[in-house]
Amino acid sequence: MTGIARSIVLTIGDELLLGRTLDSNSAWLADRLSMLGAPVGRMGTIGDVEEDVADAVRDARSRAALVVTTGGLGPTADDRTLAGVAAATAGRVPDAEIPNPRGVEPARWYEPELDTGALLVLPGPPREMTALFEASVPRIRASLGDRLRTVRTRTIATTGIPESRLAPKIQPLVDGVDGVDVAFLPDLHGVDLRLRVQGSSEREATRLLDAAESAIADVVRPFRLTAPSGDVVEALTDALLARGWTLALGESCTGGGIGERMTVRAGASRVFLGGVVAYSNEAKQVLLGVSAATLEEHGAVSEPVAASMAEGAVRAFAADCGLGITGIAGPGGGSEEKPVGTVCYAAATPEGVVVTTGRFRGDRDAVRRRSGQAALVQLLRLVERAP
Amino acid sequence: MTGIARSIVLTIGDELLLGRTLDSNSAWLADRLSMLGAPVGRMGTIGDVEEDVADAVRDARSRAALVVTTGGLGPTADDRTLAGVAAATAGRVPDAEIPNPRGVEPARWYEPELDTGALLVLPGPPREMTALFEASVPRIRASLGDRLRTVRTRTIATTGIPESRLAPKIQPLVDGVDGVDVAFLPDLHGVDLRLRVQGSSEREATRLLDAAESAIADVVRPFRLTAPSGDVVEALTDALLARGWTLALGESCTGGGIGERMTVRAGASRVFLGGVVAYSNEAKQVLLGVSAATLEEHGAVSEPVAASMAEGAVRAFAADCGLGITGIAGPGGGSEEKPVGTVCYAAATPEGVVVTTGRFRGDRDAVRRRSGQAALVQLLRLVERAP
Repeated sequence: MTGIARSIVLTIGDELLLGRTLDSNSAWLADRLSMLGAPVGRMGTIGDVEEDVADAVRDARSRAALVVTTGGLGPTADDRTLAGVAAATAGRVPDAEIPNPRGVEPARWYEPELDTGALLVLPGPPREMTALFEASVPRIRASLGDRLRTVRTRTIATTGIPESRLAPKIQPLVDGVDGVDVAFLPDLHGVDLRLRVQGSSEREATRLLDAAESAIADVVRPFRLTAPSGDVVEALTDALLARGWTLALGESCTGGGIGERMTVRAGASRVFLGGVVAYSNEAKQVLLGVSAATLEEHGAVSEPVAASMAEGAVRAFAADCGLGITGIAGPGGGSEEKPVGTVCYAAATPEGVVVTTGRFRGDRDAVRRRSGQAALVQLLRLVERAP
Repeated sequence: MTGIARSIVLTIGDELLLGRTLDSNSAWLADRLSMLGAPVGRMGTIGDVEEDVADAVRDARSRAALVVTTGGLGPTADDRTLAGVAAATAGRVPDAEIPNPRGVEPARWYEPELDTGALLVLPGPPREMTALFEASVPRIRASLGDRLRTVRTRTIATTGIPESRLAPKIQPLVDGVDGVDVAFLPDLHGVDLRLRVQGSSEREATRLLDAAESAIADVVRPFRLTAPSGDVVEALTDALLARGWTLALGESCTGGGIGERMTVRAGASRVFLGGVVAYSNEAKQVLLGVSAATLEEHGAVSEPVAASMAEGAVRAFAADCGLGITGIAGPGGGSEEKPVGTVCYAAATPEGVVVTTGRFRGDRDAVRRRSGQAALVQLLRLVERAP
């Protein structure tokens, strides 16, 4: 087999065929193999049945330069991968075993032969699988060499603009840079842009990626998240640290979800003092100092209440900055004036208070996540721009 | 083809081979097909390539009584499923089209032939796919009839005991009831037991499932969650409602995650008043009334502080019940006496306060989720048993 290397991923395990386990290994391997320059041509899932494993491995090695299997390596009688591989390789001993830094079963590596692709046999638990795949990359490179099409990528994280508005602006700009393509990877917190160059030298790839990044810079700037993880929480934590500011929260509709996100990483306590989850009106009054008159006049979901919650959080925790959020996450509770998805969110900094009302799409979970993200982004921009 | 019907699931789309999209359709279909009595024998993923689709569909129909494809049906030129299916069926018109309640593309249904399984072609977006599959079930039943092995299941949710301790107690008891098997489905919040009977009449299946449930009742009782969703939050909300009690939280290491869970469902405000996320020691003192002496003497991660946080939440929100939690989620901050994973959690009810110290395994996220679950379960049991 010659030409660009293609790969096939085989996932093995009865639990997958019963739908009991969601297969995240395949997508992870597909992404890594594509980045490594051996894009995946097809993927398959089979049960813990020796003949099925043997058939699938034999067939895949006849079609692809590289076959990667995961699963079915445990110590129990259920696990039939090694027996199936033995049948498919006519009992050959692996050309190498790569020790498992996070478990017992090593990776088994079989070199390619004339009409037979290379074979990498990995265990199923994702922590072990990912570590062993990375440890096997040098062997894949050594064996497939220049049949791997080099791929270089650069990811630019954005937030606050949907894919449907971002893509039509970005796509023609990237199309103007020969040799670069772009993928849009959306989730509830934003859209990542992945710029990609294939088959170029490192220096040429860097030049092309720089050119594409320059071409889209003006469009992307207002929405870009520059933290390495592309996460607004990391960007906000860094921006607060840079100014020596602390943060406290006043949450209603998000129920504590923003605090949960602020503390996902260790070390949050350097800037995050805490928050009040004020689900009831009484809690908004007693713990955040929102006045009964404001609640009465404007309603619990209103800009004055959101602002008062942010300022109340600042006071309660003696913080420099505060975030307030109140809204109608649904499915009930909407009105004509304030439909489900209406969320008011405020950011208080030493410079003052900013409040916004947003209408967020989706179910209760989506409204809570999207509005929480918008509230964090609003605060981030204010902290970044503070003098 | 005769005998028990087997099925094959084919997922179609370039984005899956690039690892950009996690395939949740396959697991959902595998579960539903298994419950319908046509268990999945293998699954495959292919790109938007007409010949690949045609090959895979042809091959699958020669192996299985039922083939279900998802994806590749959109209006764009990328989507090649219909062309591939046309090639695989020699241009036959579908025997039926099932209208899509949530989108544009209908499901296409091809009846089985002599050596060729039935074929159901579904769109890829999960909301549309699931609705169309359900709408197609009557056709599958009519066509495959008594080759479907009837399957009936009953799920029993447990929490507070790991699979490794639960399975050895449960398995022999279920093995004692002929015709019933059990699967253990663990996640960070607990272990679901799925009891299953195949190939029996409805009445006989009910009798067998009742017998199995009785056999394991004594072992399961202390760990069982009886809410329909199997979620401790639903069980706790119901138990509080039944007594007319309200709840407030004092969270430290979970950062707001317990409040976020308490408010996942609409209507939480009937029992949930709110919480304080007291990440700093000052916040624990000022907002929850934990005394400086207690913090000094026992440290922030200690049973007296957890108890004081639960009582402080009760006072601050004028609630009937309170939950306090403080711990070391890691990765840093552990000591010999209090290693990473040490979490103290307290439940306050009108009957008094109970505090527990747990050691939880896993990374920061796992420690936070497991300890939050344990804290909710402790409170649930106290509320359930209250006179």
